[in-house]
Amino acid sequence: MNKKRETIGFIGLGNMGLAMATNLLKAGFGLRVYNRTAEKAKPLLEQGATLARSPAEAVEPGRIVVTMLTDDRAVEEVTLGAAGLLERLGDGVHVSMSTIAPHTARRLAGLHHERGASYVASPVFGKPDVAAHGKLWIATSGDPIARSRVKPIQEAVGQRIVDFGDDPGAANVIKLAGNFMFGAAIEAMAEAFTLAQKQGVPRRQTYEFFTQTLFDCPAYHAYGELIATEHYQPVGARPSLIRKDFGLILQAADEQLVPMPLADLVHERLTATVAKGREDADWAGFAREVSEGAGL
Amino acid sequence: MNKKRETIGFIGLGNMGLAMATNLLKAGFGLRVYNRTAEKAKPLLEQGATLARSPAEAVEPGRIVVTMLTDDRAVEEVTLGAAGLLERLGDGVHVSMSTIAPHTARRLAGLHHERGASYVASPVFGKPDVAAHGKLWIATSGDPIARSRVKPIQEAVGQRIVDFGDDPGAANVIKLAGNFMFGAAIEAMAEAFTLAQKQGVPRRQTYEFFTQTLFDCPAYHAYGELIATEHYQPVGARPSLIRKDFGLILQAADEQLVPMPLADLVHERLTATVAKGREDADWAGFAREVSEGAGL
Repeated sequence: MNKKRETIGFIGLGNMGLAMATNLLKAGFGLRVYNRTAEKAKPLLEQGATLARSPAEAVEPGRIVVTMLTDDRAVEEVTLGAAGLLERLGDGVHVSMSTIAPHTARRLAGLHHERGASYVASPVFGKPDVAAHGKLWIATSGDPIARSRVKPIQEAVGQRIVDFGDDPGAANVIKLAGNFMFGAAIEAMAEAFTLAQKQGVPRRQTYEFFTQTLFDCPAYHAYGELIATEHYQPVGARPSLIRKDFGLILQAADEQLVPMPLADLVHERLTATVAKGREDADWAGFAREVSEGAGL
Repeated sequence: MNKKRETIGFIGLGNMGLAMATNLLKAGFGLRVYNRTAEKAKPLLEQGATLARSPAEAVEPGRIVVTMLTDDRAVEEVTLGAAGLLERLGDGVHVSMSTIAPHTARRLAGLHHERGASYVASPVFGKPDVAAHGKLWIATSGDPIARSRVKPIQEAVGQRIVDFGDDPGAANVIKLAGNFMFGAAIEAMAEAFTLAQKQGVPRRQTYEFFTQTLFDCPAYHAYGELIATEHYQPVGARPSLIRKDFGLILQAADEQLVPMPLADLVHERLTATVAKGREDADWAGFAREVSEGAGL
């Protein structure tokens, strides 16, 4: 364990949140943790965290609270609902790491500002295993003073933090753009590997050639292996969760009148995947729509 | 100049072919060059190459001839037409580096075999500047003995040669899959950068974040810079040339009944780009269809 640091609140202990909270404890932060299902907190309590029974209870006025939740509604509920975090935050900082709509981030930032608190958008890239190793990629934006204050927290969970300025929506725009680019890469590999397979070149050979040459980068490695083997395990994120993100992408595109036919295509793939009840596989499993469409 | 090596034929002196032929001379090979427009050969003649006045004249029976041409028709004409290379090749080897249909490669390989000659498919990845530096990525397949015989030629123009076995169509399948994946990446970046731009994040910031993190690979760097700056120069390949490739991709998909909606989308983008007469910009300029569609 590193040097002792301040105690912060941490709300949301899903696959990602639990891994991130664990790294914060390892880095020496004290944690007050809240999760709707309290038993998820157990491994953290054993490592010295204390349990809060409401979002508000996770907060110490004037200090920092982190949220890592599944969607806009959950972040709004935990922030603004009964016993929500904002009522106790004072002039503290809310580090919002969930994937939510840019307009939700902007609205929440405004509500924080009205009450003297600060809001820092800080969505993360990386699967749960990346989170477990403290190697997330983080996009951040929002109030500049608060941003520098929360940097040690971001550094405890991420390998790289990139600053997108004062607009609290900007980091979420980048997060949505990134999830869209992942989905596009999955569709591209699914079509390419399936074409090659039916033309006589094994999926793995195609995967290896491209990820060792022109597409030698984390996104293509991480999803390409699943698509090459057609074994969509472990579940980094469920199809319904990322389908929600594609809803946000298309909503952000609609707000600003940006036609995104490729985002539409991936959204439809995810819709079919969820409709078929394929929640037991990683979201990259939507690639099966491509092979099945080709009669494989 | 390196050690003196055998003299080979080289047919097709476009942007790519000229760069590759230059590297073969530098590596010590003697060259008999043929190009439909003979003046393109001039810089090579100054470096010691000799000029052939027909494809057949570029060939010495029993030796090696390389072709690097724009499409299936050109390769067929140069190989099988009047004064074509095959009539003089004897038991020599034809190294076919053009981007052509897998079924054309298979058919040509059969015709070579009937006459005692060998055909090695050897399509290349990389823009003209990559070719100039001898750093192409090469997929190869075809007759195994001929494949090992032509390796020094491939090594003189490429940084990496990956073998796809005896099927002469396999390397061309990989080449088509790769051009498709480039097109998919361009469409993805075009939509992502445009969404981000209209949501307030400059294109360059989006480009830099992704190419420094999750998409840090040659394909995203090479095309992302053009899409970020919206300056589609220099022209690595004209839109009409790559539109031809997408025709081959969809034809190969159609033969094997593989629905490829993303390949359809990119093909339509290129069709619009060519229809608008935008041949003075790199093919990645089809990304303008996305920004223009968003009113930018």
